[in-house]
Amino acid sequence: MGLDRVIYNGTVLTVNPDFEIIADGIVGIRDGKIVQVASRSKPIDSYAAKDAVDARGGIIMPGLVNCHAHLPMSLFRGLADDLPLETWLNHYIFPAEHRHLSPDTARTGTLLSCAEMLLSGTTCCCDGYFYEHDVASAVLETGMRAVLAQGVIDFPAPGVLNPADNVAAAVAFVEKWKGCSPLITPSIFCHSPYTCSADTLRKAKQAATALQVLFQIHVAETRAEADQCKADFGLSPVQYLDELGVLDARTLVAHGVWVDETDIRLLAERKVAVAHCQESNMKLASGTAPVRQMMARGVIVGLGTDGSASNNNLDLFAEMDCTAKLNKVMENDPTVMNAQTVIRMATINGATAIGLKDVMGSLEPGKQADIIIIDTAKPHLTPMYHPASHLVYAASGSDVSDVFVGGRALVRDYRLLSLDGEAVMARVQAAAEMICGQGGVFDA
Amino acid sequence: MGLDRVIYNGTVLTVNPDFEIIADGIVGIRDGKIVQVASRSKPIDSYAAKDAVDARGGIIMPGLVNCHAHLPMSLFRGLADDLPLETWLNHYIFPAEHRHLSPDTARTGTLLSCAEMLLSGTTCCCDGYFYEHDVASAVLETGMRAVLAQGVIDFPAPGVLNPADNVAAAVAFVEKWKGCSPLITPSIFCHSPYTCSADTLRKAKQAATALQVLFQIHVAETRAEADQCKADFGLSPVQYLDELGVLDARTLVAHGVWVDETDIRLLAERKVAVAHCQESNMKLASGTAPVRQMMARGVIVGLGTDGSASNNNLDLFAEMDCTAKLNKVMENDPTVMNAQTVIRMATINGATAIGLKDVMGSLEPGKQADIIIIDTAKPHLTPMYHPASHLVYAASGSDVSDVFVGGRALVRDYRLLSLDGEAVMARVQAAAEMICGQGGVFDA
Repeated sequence: MGLDRVIYNGTVLTVNPDFEIIADGIVGIRDGKIVQVASRSKPIDSYAAKDAVDARGGIIMPGLVNCHAHLPMSLFRGLADDLPLETWLNHYIFPAEHRHLSPDTARTGTLLSCAEMLLSGTTCCCDGYFYEHDVASAVLETGMRAVLAQGVIDFPAPGVLNPADNVAAAVAFVEKWKGCSPLITPSIFCHSPYTCSADTLRKAKQAATALQVLFQIHVAETRAEADQCKADFGLSPVQYLDELGVLDARTLVAHGVWVDETDIRLLAERKVAVAHCQESNMKLASGTAPVRQMMARGVIVGLGTDGSASNNNLDLFAEMDCTAKLNKVMENDPTVMNAQTVIRMATINGATAIGLKDVMGSLEPGKQADIIIIDTAKPHLTPMYHPASHLVYAASGSDVSDVFVGGRALVRDYRLLSLDGEAVMARVQAAAEMICGQGGVFDA
Repeated sequence: MGLDRVIYNGTVLTVNPDFEIIADGIVGIRDGKIVQVASRSKPIDSYAAKDAVDARGGIIMPGLVNCHAHLPMSLFRGLADDLPLETWLNHYIFPAEHRHLSPDTARTGTLLSCAEMLLSGTTCCCDGYFYEHDVASAVLETGMRAVLAQGVIDFPAPGVLNPADNVAAAVAFVEKWKGCSPLITPSIFCHSPYTCSADTLRKAKQAATALQVLFQIHVAETRAEADQCKADFGLSPVQYLDELGVLDARTLVAHGVWVDETDIRLLAERKVAVAHCQESNMKLASGTAPVRQMMARGVIVGLGTDGSASNNNLDLFAEMDCTAKLNKVMENDPTVMNAQTVIRMATINGATAIGLKDVMGSLEPGKQADIIIIDTAKPHLTPMYHPASHLVYAASGSDVSDVFVGGRALVRDYRLLSLDGEAVMARVQAAAEMICGQGGVFDA
């Protein structure tokens, strides 16, 4: 039986359990799935594929997985930087969200984020934010894969003015989107232990368990948060959440910066995964998450960009580079967090962390064909001795030339196929002018 | 009198002393120099320029200055990573240099580095390595601006087999290249206090002083180096060099990681500049240079990539991003090392550090027209609230669309004009095959 598509003439980085790399490899795709990953053994015509994609000597690898994002926040990229956290949040981000977030702008910001993610090789992201129905429709339009959640917080949130309705709104989101599309996996997202009461956290986690979906939450991002939790409850944020019974194999902790040895052991025991947001933690001076120690204990750690407003882009290549380098210098050891490790974090570990390891995260027969091609015919990617090292230390998102999700081509030769990037940017620019202008946050 | 070229339709980031940003600005060029930096006040035809360059709404700014590089080392990019420093140097880099460096490969590696630097917006670099005559000829061919030095080391070096000849070879390099071209400024580069004797250091610095050129040296890169210096001489590397009389306003210290308060005061007093290599220091786990403290004391700090083998690219946008973020997280303060500060480091401070502040480093009338254009019509650079923040936190070298050095166009619309990138990559690939293959380092 023939193939729908074969990708050839590239080095295939499988990210399978052996981290197998195939020098002149091919990936065969049928019905949206990977059916063959092998050395090229015959003329490409003999593979009888409807479409043959020439990787032109580049790297063929699984699409990257962004485990923590707030998609509409790309609207606020660079709105305010280099400020104390409180000023940044209270004087810029919160007012901007409250004044300017609407179903329409949430949709526009989401399309912008998807355009950016696809163009930089991310094929799946895990998001929690507001107006999530609009986020989900927008993501669906782009053909990306995503785990999405309507945010729960004990304050009036954009689109949900009565905090008492927040858990119900989050549950309604899951019920609406469950089974709607193989690309969208709904989830429950509580903002944090300090913005959700114990009751809210318990109720939300119970709902997530009943619905069999991922439960996401920001945990121990800043020292102030960890100190406050200790003062309020006599426990670290991780221990506090464990007391509430919200930590298990379907829980994803975003950040996990201020965790000690006891917390790490607890995360490992409960099989909780962590979304590590290296650049956001650095930019906001939140601290340095002990990711190596977590991984040594068996905690699954994926990579996340966080929202664009604290990064300020959604490029997972930059996250890989920064994660490898920061950990080396923090531990005075250039051998820690090697290229292979961070590539796993950005692919299969991310897929595992968000509950989709059987669906994607590596190039293995039976998985969805979520595949990217890195164009290495560039001075900064020449010569190539080791493809893994190149991806982490030399490449950037702009070296991604082609992107496939579930076998469907979403980017070919650097061009977005599933959405009109120009039109999206024009709409974002119009929204930004409103945000800056009359009645905008700068008048605050 | 008409202009040779006018660049228009962009936000001009002058990096002048007031860090003036001109929203719809123009830069006028005549005889290779900037003659006008202003708001656009009339139809573009009225500027009577022979060539009008449309920046298409992007950012027009001074070309970036790479204060510390080893150009031919791009041949060894990614040859070996994630290794202990000694293994990396002794088992990979040194054997590769000794077996495979020749006038021809040095030239090829230099052309590759220049291609990469130009395409990522670097218009000037400061280099020290071996076969420097070949490096200089290659740089000259590309039209880039550079400060170059034949390395001095008390060991047989590639191309100079008798260590006793090293200072003389370095002096001969300066004498040959001084005044040869306005683009090439020769310099003297001693490898380090631990690879050059006191006598060599003194002789080399005296020669640099007599020749009125910059004296470059690696200093206090690793803790081991600082400890050894203390053990050998009872002094820190900075104090030791000061005792030898090599620290003055024409000295550029590369790295300066292991410097204490006394060292910093000494660097400031002697008006020594520092080339800060953020990513290399992280990747090799060398440590975190106290750049903010140095700058607070008045030390001029520019940015360098170091060689590609320890980075693994020459992208100064990544250095800016990393420098801002690492310093924030190390100091638990998101307000330190703001975007404006690191842009100055990558431009005017770099120009000052290498002795060329009157020549370039900012867009001001009278300076050489070393100018780059950043293409912001991309999802990851949309919206744009603040151009400085964008450059540091969201952009990468691959967003540079146009590059001019001394008024000459070296990159237009992402294409190299002064060298054949494809041909250079092919030659590098051939060299890399030799490096990997029979008799290559992997047989070591």
